[in-house]
Amino acid sequence: MLDEKILKILRSNQDSYVSGEEICKTAGVSRTAIWKHMERLRTDGYEIDASPHLGYRLVTVPDSLIPSEIKWNLKTKILGKEVISYNKLGSTNDLAYELAEKNAKEGTVVFAEEQTKGKGRHGRNWVSPPKSGIYFSVILKPAIPPSEIPRITLLSAVSVAKAIRAASGLEAMIKWPNDVLVHGKKLCGILTEMKAEQDKIDFVIVGIGINVNAAIKNLPKGATSIKEELHAAISRVELARKILEILDENYLKFKKEGFDPIIDEWKALTEMLGARIKISLPNRTFEGLAHDIDADGSLLVRLDSGIVEKVSSGDVVMVR
Amino acid sequence: MLDEKILKILRSNQDSYVSGEEICKTAGVSRTAIWKHMERLRTDGYEIDASPHLGYRLVTVPDSLIPSEIKWNLKTKILGKEVISYNKLGSTNDLAYELAEKNAKEGTVVFAEEQTKGKGRHGRNWVSPPKSGIYFSVILKPAIPPSEIPRITLLSAVSVAKAIRAASGLEAMIKWPNDVLVHGKKLCGILTEMKAEQDKIDFVIVGIGINVNAAIKNLPKGATSIKEELHAAISRVELARKILEILDENYLKFKKEGFDPIIDEWKALTEMLGARIKISLPNRTFEGLAHDIDADGSLLVRLDSGIVEKVSSGDVVMVR
Repeated sequence: MLDEKILKILRSNQDSYVSGEEICKTAGVSRTAIWKHMERLRTDGYEIDASPHLGYRLVTVPDSLIPSEIKWNLKTKILGKEVISYNKLGSTNDLAYELAEKNAKEGTVVFAEEQTKGKGRHGRNWVSPPKSGIYFSVILKPAIPPSEIPRITLLSAVSVAKAIRAASGLEAMIKWPNDVLVHGKKLCGILTEMKAEQDKIDFVIVGIGINVNAAIKNLPKGATSIKEELHAAISRVELARKILEILDENYLKFKKEGFDPIIDEWKALTEMLGARIKISLPNRTFEGLAHDIDADGSLLVRLDSGIVEKVSSGDVVMVR
Repeated sequence: MLDEKILKILRSNQDSYVSGEEICKTAGVSRTAIWKHMERLRTDGYEIDASPHLGYRLVTVPDSLIPSEIKWNLKTKILGKEVISYNKLGSTNDLAYELAEKNAKEGTVVFAEEQTKGKGRHGRNWVSPPKSGIYFSVILKPAIPPSEIPRITLLSAVSVAKAIRAASGLEAMIKWPNDVLVHGKKLCGILTEMKAEQDKIDFVIVGIGINVNAAIKNLPKGATSIKEELHAAISRVELARKILEILDENYLKFKKEGFDPIIDEWKALTEMLGARIKISLPNRTFEGLAHDIDADGSLLVRLDSGIVEKVSSGDVVMVR
C-alpha cells in the first residue's frame, strides 16, 4: 500500500527528483522507512535514482505483469480492481477457478510470468515461456445460462484482437471459436471454463495466453509472436492493460445492450465467414462453407448438400 | 474388504448359522480376527447372532446408506462401483464436486445420512433431516456440450420418478425442470452442477434429495415425504438402489440411443404439458401454456399472443 503511494509520488514527478522530506510528508512514511520501500520497489524492477541532495527519481518502470504496473492508470469499471501476480504458476485458470470457488470478486485477474502447466482447450497444453508472453485469467460472473457461454469466448476474442491491433498495429484476426491469428499464425488462445448449475452460471474463468515477445524457437509449430511479426518487442504491460480495458468495455456493453453489437464486431474481425473450412469433431470430420455466427455464438456451416449445420465445438481448419 | 466378504457369507446363509470355522476358511480370516470383524459389522448396524455351538447368523441388516448395503446386489454398469457414505456432511454435491476435480471415476456416488448445508437450486437450502431421507450425488462425465446439461437433469428426474413408483407404488410426477411431486407436493429435488469448457463438459454432479421417511413437521412448507403419502415407511436402501439402477440404465440408453427415448418417458411422467403455468425469471414473470419439451430439454411455453417461448430456467408454478 505504502509502496504504491510512494510509487505514485515518484511517477507524477518522473522527470525530476522528489525530496525524501516531501515523500515522507505526502505518503505519511517515516524518514527511516523510506529506504526499505525504495529497496522493495527496486526488487520489483523499478529503477530509482537516489541523490543525497536532490532526493529520489524514478528512472524506468519494469515491463512486468505486477499489480502496481497493471493497475497504473487502468481505465476499467469491473476488471482488475483485484490483480494477483505470480512469477511462476501451474495454470492461471486453475488458480482463478480456485479463487472463484472461494468467492473471489468478479473482475479479479490472475497473471503469471510463466506457467508450468499452462492449459489449452480439451486438456491440451499452452506453451508459456517465461517473461515473454501474457498469461492471465479473469473471473466473470455473468447472469446468463451455461448455454450462452460461447458468447463470453467470442467477446473475449474480439477484445483481444482489438487490443493487439491498438498496441501493435498488427492486423489480428479471429478464428472461431477462440484463436487470434496474425498472418494466419496463432498468436493467442482463449480457454473459457465455468462452474454452473443447469440454468445459471456461477462463474466463468476466461484464460488468455498471448505470445508477445517470445522467440519463435520457444513456441509450438504454427504459432507466432507479436515480436516475430512486428520485428520489434512491445510493452507487455501496455498490451495487458489495453486488453483489460477493452474487455471491460465490451463486457459492460454486452450486459447493457446484449450480444448483437459484439457479434457485429466479431464478424468484422474474421476472415473465416465465406471461407471453406474443415471441422474435426471427436467422432467425425466434415467440410463446408463458414456461413455465419449464430445468436448464441455457434458457427453455422453450410454443407455441400445445402444443409446448414450448427457447430458449437470442434477444431476448425481453413481449407485453401 | 474382509468385512464385506464375511457379510457376503452371512447373507447367503441368512436363515441359518454359519460355523466360525467355515467363515475362517471361506473368507481367509484367522479365528481370532473373526470377533473384531463381527463387532465392526454390528457397529454398522448389522444384527448378528453368535452361538458358541452353531456359529454366526445374520438377523437383520440396517436401513443405512452405507456402501455394503448400497452395493449389495446392485445391478449397474457405471453407477455405484465406488460408494462413499457419511453420517453427516455439509453437502453431498460439494464433496462430489471436489472428488471430481481430483479426478474421481465416473459413477462415483456420495451419500450422507444428514446434510448440514444441503444445497438447492440458485443458492437455496435443501432441508435434510437425519436418517429419514436419501441425499446423494453422482459424478457423471457425459461427452456433451454444456448447453445440453438440461438433458441430464430431465434424465435424472425420469429415473427418480420411476424408482419412487417402483419402490412405493406412489404416482410420482415430474415438474419441469427438476422436481418430483406426489399429490402436487414436493418429494424430491435435483440439483445439477457442472464444470465445463465452452464446448465440453468436464463433469456433472447430479445431486438428488428425497424425503423418504421424514415426518412432515421436519420438512418445509409444500413438501411431503413418501411415508406421509403412503402412511408407511419404506426401505431407504432399496429405493436408493432402485434409483441408481434406473439412472444407470437411462444414462446408458441416453449414451447409446440419444435423448429422444428419455423425452418420451419424461412426457409420460408429467402433468404439466397442456397446463397453464406461471414462470418467474429473475427480471420478469409471465403466464402461458406448457406446450412441449424441446430437444435440448428446454420448456416451450405458448404465450397468450400465440408466440412460443423457449424457457431454459426459472421457477414454474401451475396455475389452477
